[in-house]
Amino acid sequence: MRKSAVRELYTVGRLCVLAVGVLASTTAGADDDLMSAARQIFKPIPSIVPAVKDNPITHEKVTLGKTLFFDPRLSASGVISCNTCHNLGTGGVDAGPKSVGHRWQLGSRRAPTVYNAVFNVAQFWDGRAADLKAQAAGPVQASAEMNATPARLLNTLNSMTDYIVMFSKAFPNDATPVTFDNFAKAIEAFEATLITPAAPFDQYLEGDPYALSAQQKAGLKLFIEKGCSSCHNGINVGGQDYFPFGVMERPTASLLPRDDKGRFAVTKVPGDEYVFRSAPLRNVALRPPYFHSGQVWSLKQAVGVMSEIQLGAKLNDTEKDDIVAFLNSLTGQLPKIDYPILPTRTDTTPKPSMDK
Amino acid sequence: MRKSAVRELYTVGRLCVLAVGVLASTTAGADDDLMSAARQIFKPIPSIVPAVKDNPITHEKVTLGKTLFFDPRLSASGVISCNTCHNLGTGGVDAGPKSVGHRWQLGSRRAPTVYNAVFNVAQFWDGRAADLKAQAAGPVQASAEMNATPARLLNTLNSMTDYIVMFSKAFPNDATPVTFDNFAKAIEAFEATLITPAAPFDQYLEGDPYALSAQQKAGLKLFIEKGCSSCHNGINVGGQDYFPFGVMERPTASLLPRDDKGRFAVTKVPGDEYVFRSAPLRNVALRPPYFHSGQVWSLKQAVGVMSEIQLGAKLNDTEKDDIVAFLNSLTGQLPKIDYPILPTRTDTTPKPSMDK
Repeated sequence: MRKSAVRELYTVGRLCVLAVGVLASTTAGADDDLMSAARQIFKPIPSIVPAVKDNPITHEKVTLGKTLFFDPRLSASGVISCNTCHNLGTGGVDAGPKSVGHRWQLGSRRAPTVYNAVFNVAQFWDGRAADLKAQAAGPVQASAEMNATPARLLNTLNSMTDYIVMFSKAFPNDATPVTFDNFAKAIEAFEATLITPAAPFDQYLEGDPYALSAQQKAGLKLFIEKGCSSCHNGINVGGQDYFPFGVMERPTASLLPRDDKGRFAVTKVPGDEYVFRSAPLRNVALRPPYFHSGQVWSLKQAVGVMSEIQLGAKLNDTEKDDIVAFLNSLTGQLPKIDYPILPTRTDTTPKPSMDK
Repeated sequence: MRKSAVRELYTVGRLCVLAVGVLASTTAGADDDLMSAARQIFKPIPSIVPAVKDNPITHEKVTLGKTLFFDPRLSASGVISCNTCHNLGTGGVDAGPKSVGHRWQLGSRRAPTVYNAVFNVAQFWDGRAADLKAQAAGPVQASAEMNATPARLLNTLNSMTDYIVMFSKAFPNDATPVTFDNFAKAIEAFEATLITPAAPFDQYLEGDPYALSAQQKAGLKLFIEKGCSSCHNGINVGGQDYFPFGVMERPTASLLPRDDKGRFAVTKVPGDEYVFRSAPLRNVALRPPYFHSGQVWSLKQAVGVMSEIQLGAKLNDTEKDDIVAFLNSLTGQLPKIDYPILPTRTDTTPKPSMDK
C-alpha cells in the first residue's frame, strides 16, 4: 500500500469514529458505540485451534511438531532450536533486537513471535513466507541461524527410531513419512496451537463491557480515533496487511536501517520500499524490544514513535498511557506446554558441527 | 585415590563376586546371590525428592528455581540459560563434547547431567563445588558461559515484579529475599527434584528379579566381576568418589587432554593429577558423547575404553553388549516439566550485552 493510500485510510477511520462520537449522546451510549466500532474492526481470538490449509491438525502431528520445535540437534551446532529465538516462555520471542545464530552471527531483524502467528496474512516482517509451513523451512537452513541443510536434517531425524515412529503416526498415509515437507507441516501444526485466547480485549469483543477498565476503553477509543487501527486490525490487531514504515515522517536510520527495504525485496515493486507487514499487537506487552529493528524497549515510547511517524500526531502523556493500557488488554492466556523429552541420539546421528 | 589403591579395590571386588559365584550351585541361587551382591553395592533412586542440607525444599522454591533454570536473560547475552547446556529434554546435557557459551566460546569439558546430580558427592568433573548450590553460582558468572555478574543478575531479577514476588514466597523469612545466595538455593531446590526413579535396575534392587532381562543380569554380573562397580557404585552408579583416569594404561590425549589435570586443580595434591569424579551412570544411554572430554559417541565403545584403560581387561564383543544392556537398565522415569512462562522484562531490566 502506498503512503497516499494509507493517509486516506486514516481519514476514513477517523470519520467512522467521529460518527460514533457524534451518535453517542450518553456515556452508556458511547460505551455501546465503542464496542460496536471495535467489533467491526477487530475479531476475538478463537478458543479452539484454527484449521490450517492443506494440513489437518492432529494430536500426533502437534506432538511431533512440539518435539521438533524444541530440538536443538536440528541445527548444525546442536545448540539452536526454534525455541531459542521464539522462546515460548518470553512471549514467543528472544531477549534482544537481533537473534543469535550459528557461530554467534546476529540476525538482521527482530524475531517475530510465534504466538498467534497462524492468524497473520503471511510470515516474516516482509511476508516472504506464505504460511507457517513455508516459514518453518527457513531458519533451519539459514547459515546465520540454524545452519543445517535438508539432507542433514533428514539424516538426523532418520537416525532416531522415536522420530521415525512419530512421523509415521503423524503422517499415516505417507509411504515415506520422514520428509522435509512433513517436518515443516508438523511444526506448522504445533504452531497453530500457539494461540492465546481470553485476553481482556477478547472478553470485551465478546460482549463483556467490564472486561476493559475505563482507561483501557479510553485507549481503545484513541487507538481507533487516531488511526492506529487502520493498520492494526483484525484478529491479531495487526499482521494482516503491509504498510510503509514512515508514512508522515521518515524514521531515523536506527529504527529503519536504510539497507533493509522490507517487502521490496520480495515483490521488487518500487512502492514497496520500506514497507513491512504491520506488527501484530497481541501480547505486545510481553515482548519488547519493538519494531523490526528492535531498537525501542518501552511500549510507551513505541506508541509515541508510531503516532508521530505514521500518523503525524503528537500524543500527550495521558493519551500514550491510555493506549498502553489498551495494549496491555491484548495479553491473552498462553498455552500450557509440557517440555518434551527428545528422542535419544544414536551412533548414526550427525555430530554437532561448530564450523562455518 | 591412588592408582595402586584402586587396583587393590578391584581385587577385593573380584573376590566378592567370586565368592558369590562359588556359593551359588543352582541358577536360582546364582540369581539370588547376584541380587544380593548388587544390593550391597548399589542403591535404588528414591521415589521422593531427597532432603538437601541447609535448604528445605518447598513448592515455592522449586517453582522459582525452575523459572530461573529456564531463563536465558540471566546470561549477559540473553541467550543462554542453565537449560541450554543441561537440556532436560536430552538427558540433562547438551549435544556435543563442548558446551557453547557467551560469544560462541567453547567449554573445556563435557557438560555433566543435572538429573540425579543431587546424589553426587560433589559437583563438576573435579568436584570443585561441594553441592548444587555452589555449582549453580558458577556458570552464570563464568565469562565463557553465561558471562553475567552477581550484580547484573540481581538487577535483572529486581527489575521484574513477578521475580520479586516469587523470591518473597520462596524465602518468606528473609528481609531481603532477592539475593545471589537465594538464587543459587532456588536452583538447587529445583535440581533436587530432577531425579529419575523406577528404572528397571531400581525395580531389580527393590526385589523384582524379572525387572532385568537375562542379558542385563549377565551385564550386571560382569560389571561387578570385572571391577567396574569398584568406582561406579552407590545410588548414582558412580559420582560418589574420585579416581585416576588411566589406572592400567594412559588414555590418548584426545580422551585425556594433558593440560586438564582434573582434581589436582582443586586439591593441589600431586596424587590427584588426572583424577576425576567417577561418572554417574544413571541414564547414561541418554547422553552421549562420553567422558569429560566427550570424545566417545558410542556406549559400547566407551565400555571397551574403560575396561582396557581402567581395568586392564579386554572384553569380548558379547561381554561389551551385556554390559551395555545392563547400562540401558539404568534409564529411569524423567520428571514431567511444565515449560515456565517467564516474568516479563521491564524498562529497568538490563539489556542483552553481546560484548566480551
